[in-house]
Amino acid sequence: MHATTHNTKSAKLAITPARRLDPEDAQLALSKVQALLRRHALIENLVHRQEVGDDRAPLVEGLLHRQHETEIQSVVNVLHPADIAFILESLPKDERQLIWGLVDEAFNADVLLEVADWVRESLIESMNRAELVAATVNMDADEIADLASDLPPDVIAEVQKGLTVEERAHLIAAMGYPEDSVGGIMDFEMVRVREDVSLEVVLRYLRRLPELPDHTDQIFVVDRGDKLLGVLSLSSLLVNEPEIKVSEVMSTDYLTLNPLDSDAEAAGAFERYDLVSSPVVDDQGRIIGRVTISEVVDVIREDSDEQELSRAGMQEEDIFAPLTMALKNRAPWLLLNLCTAATASFIASRFEGTVSAIVVLAFLMSIVAGIGGNSGNQTMTLIIRALAVGRITSKNIWQLIKREMLVTLLVGLIGSLVAALFAWAISGSVAIATVMMAAMVGNMLVGASVGVLVPMVRARLGKDPAMGSSVLLTFATDSLGFLIFLGLATLFLM
Amino acid sequence: MHATTHNTKSAKLAITPARRLDPEDAQLALSKVQALLRRHALIENLVHRQEVGDDRAPLVEGLLHRQHETEIQSVVNVLHPADIAFILESLPKDERQLIWGLVDEAFNADVLLEVADWVRESLIESMNRAELVAATVNMDADEIADLASDLPPDVIAEVQKGLTVEERAHLIAAMGYPEDSVGGIMDFEMVRVREDVSLEVVLRYLRRLPELPDHTDQIFVVDRGDKLLGVLSLSSLLVNEPEIKVSEVMSTDYLTLNPLDSDAEAAGAFERYDLVSSPVVDDQGRIIGRVTISEVVDVIREDSDEQELSRAGMQEEDIFAPLTMALKNRAPWLLLNLCTAATASFIASRFEGTVSAIVVLAFLMSIVAGIGGNSGNQTMTLIIRALAVGRITSKNIWQLIKREMLVTLLVGLIGSLVAALFAWAISGSVAIATVMMAAMVGNMLVGASVGVLVPMVRARLGKDPAMGSSVLLTFATDSLGFLIFLGLATLFLM
Repeated sequence: MHATTHNTKSAKLAITPARRLDPEDAQLALSKVQALLRRHALIENLVHRQEVGDDRAPLVEGLLHRQHETEIQSVVNVLHPADIAFILESLPKDERQLIWGLVDEAFNADVLLEVADWVRESLIESMNRAELVAATVNMDADEIADLASDLPPDVIAEVQKGLTVEERAHLIAAMGYPEDSVGGIMDFEMVRVREDVSLEVVLRYLRRLPELPDHTDQIFVVDRGDKLLGVLSLSSLLVNEPEIKVSEVMSTDYLTLNPLDSDAEAAGAFERYDLVSSPVVDDQGRIIGRVTISEVVDVIREDSDEQELSRAGMQEEDIFAPLTMALKNRAPWLLLNLCTAATASFIASRFEGTVSAIVVLAFLMSIVAGIGGNSGNQTMTLIIRALAVGRITSKNIWQLIKREMLVTLLVGLIGSLVAALFAWAISGSVAIATVMMAAMVGNMLVGASVGVLVPMVRARLGKDPAMGSSVLLTFATDSLGFLIFLGLATLFLM
Repeated sequence: MHATTHNTKSAKLAITPARRLDPEDAQLALSKVQALLRRHALIENLVHRQEVGDDRAPLVEGLLHRQHETEIQSVVNVLHPADIAFILESLPKDERQLIWGLVDEAFNADVLLEVADWVRESLIESMNRAELVAATVNMDADEIADLASDLPPDVIAEVQKGLTVEERAHLIAAMGYPEDSVGGIMDFEMVRVREDVSLEVVLRYLRRLPELPDHTDQIFVVDRGDKLLGVLSLSSLLVNEPEIKVSEVMSTDYLTLNPLDSDAEAAGAFERYDLVSSPVVDDQGRIIGRVTISEVVDVIREDSDEQELSRAGMQEEDIFAPLTMALKNRAPWLLLNLCTAATASFIASRFEGTVSAIVVLAFLMSIVAGIGGNSGNQTMTLIIRALAVGRITSKNIWQLIKREMLVTLLVGLIGSLVAALFAWAISGSVAIATVMMAAMVGNMLVGASVGVLVPMVRARLGKDPAMGSSVLLTFATDSLGFLIFLGLATLFLM
């Protein structure tokens, strides 16, 4: 029987008990810090302006500085590390570095683990080697692995020296798995017991630990070779009589994860089966780690954020990310959209003769293109979501396509009547109104087809169905919208 | 000392042990069910075609029916209720009802609680009163409350008869809270203990329970009036010596929720502080319920789904939701977009003279409008996300606006150079290219302003910043894009 627990956090909390706050309180703290920072900056400016004429200026500045710093510390250092991370993420870089310098060193490790990647970089940048070693030396192997890409190599080397052989093996294992795999989010802290002992023995064993690993809702029953035989929930441990053997009350009906499973799949399983923790086993059935709900919640949130941003053509970026990062992040998407828009515009320009003859077509064609895109986007959103939860199989694709075409046709008929009315009002021509109606229904069906097929083909090819699909959709509904509308106009109105 | 536990699920699992599957297995089961349904339908058609000429047809049909039903049951009834729910959600209505009729009645309650709202309606529709009473009679008060809006009143009345006075009070309380409040997602199952007893007494007390409530990671320490004094984590209970008093090891540093807090706020707190459960207390500090991570994960997922759908102008809809629901869901959004597009087009048509004279403007103006929209959408996505996590305060609004304007200006300068090049290529006119460039940068700044201000104003007014904002954005970038481009063209090119 053996267990690995991390006493880092408990030890730290004993030194400086962190208040756990309501998120609203964290926002309040953010406002206070911002107000203090502003006063800080104002006074600094004032003092600087007087500097030349007054010898006491540096002294005054120093005093005020220290007073402000104390005030800021009294606001920040009573917060939960997660709330300190929140405040650091909500400030522009120079103010962030200032606050980070005032954060109690005892919080450094937890805050570094909590902040977003792009903030962590700037925090690590401003720490010296000794501070970095101090912050990371007590971390668990999986936590060091999460930070490794941002840490200077000599710090990692220093920290590694302090690890046991087992911990070093864990670190190497954790660093070997892709970031978005189960291996990338698992930890190594877990309690393992043998199946032939009584619950009494388990209870006595647990009393020898300083605490249970975070989010322990079950302990793992293994044989001598660490092969997982079953799980013993704390609930079973607590409600059964102490004389009962582990093997009698352990459950053999549980989910196991493989370290190479994707983290999104693991998240899906946690969601569906309401899990708090799940064992990770290797191909031989030996337990090598554990995934807990706190990591899973982060995965769910990050995936949803990522998807939201990727729909607008962005990667991770926050309101105070560096400017160069923002440019690199946004420009490619806009240039891509510019190219597709230019292509669509070029296609439309092939009908210059028609548009010269009937100028009003120029004002109607963007409606046809736009509504096709909007309608296709509705279809695509549904399909991407259904793909994400695994609801689409080869057996219901056709039913789906038929359904989407039917819905689009019905909505399209209603919408195109309104559009035709507008076309008639603006042009006074029934012929133009009729062409408008036909083109709009046609382009909405284009949107629906692209909205169904492109995500499905991308998913089949193993690619993320969301990102590329929306560019292709706009490209198709713009280009074909212009083509259908101006084509029909050329055929029937010229 | 008293506890409320639900023995519904445990009792049921004892009768028909449900296999917990990997989600991939659930997809496999879905494929199998779909294949069986298809064979079912094919044979039914064949038999129907022969019916007139052959007396044995009904007999053959009956036999085959039963054979298929047995096969389907053998696939479905070994699944976890969450997976059965998944299969029901993935089928069109008629097939769904067929499968639902074959699901083991022992699963009815759990499946009803698991499925999405729009599926639940159709399932309840096909059940008779006795079945409904049987399915709901053993549910917990908070579970009945979740289903109440879909159940016939006489079923609720019948089920209420079977409740204890306390349970009935819980049911009434749960039904009184809004769906998206903490009260709407809390349950009433929790273990409460007094502070002056020893851990030994707590352990003995727990052994008298059939099991602990799901997701119990802490038990609540209360006084005689149910006022919450502290929380005792199972970890503390297990690692400390039995002689120690509860008051010595309980934690007084915990988060409490109010039943009227929004469920999204509660989810934020669970995420930030890595919670598994949290007590819900009333204004007098008395504990009235508990929120667990499994409800919170559902809230996070539903909110993210909702936001994704609302961006495309939809409410909850799934790939096999009824057709009328789909129409009601999608048509209003498209009509709204049609109106804004028509308005923009009307504004453009005021420049008919200019466009008649320089037809190429007709093909360029949609580029100006489109890129302004894309760029504004990037800004808006960032702002909405920052608002959602509470990162924007009155003190950083101006910094933010300045930053977004600067980023947009820089990206706009790069993009407009490319656009100007295209305009020059298609028109051969440097003047048109210059107008194109100026209009594009101008319209991108329009997009950035709308992208920052509209969500912030909506949030300030207490409205969802996401949904309405995107219509307003497109409206602004389309209308003003046309206005700026054609206006500049009229001024400088005519």
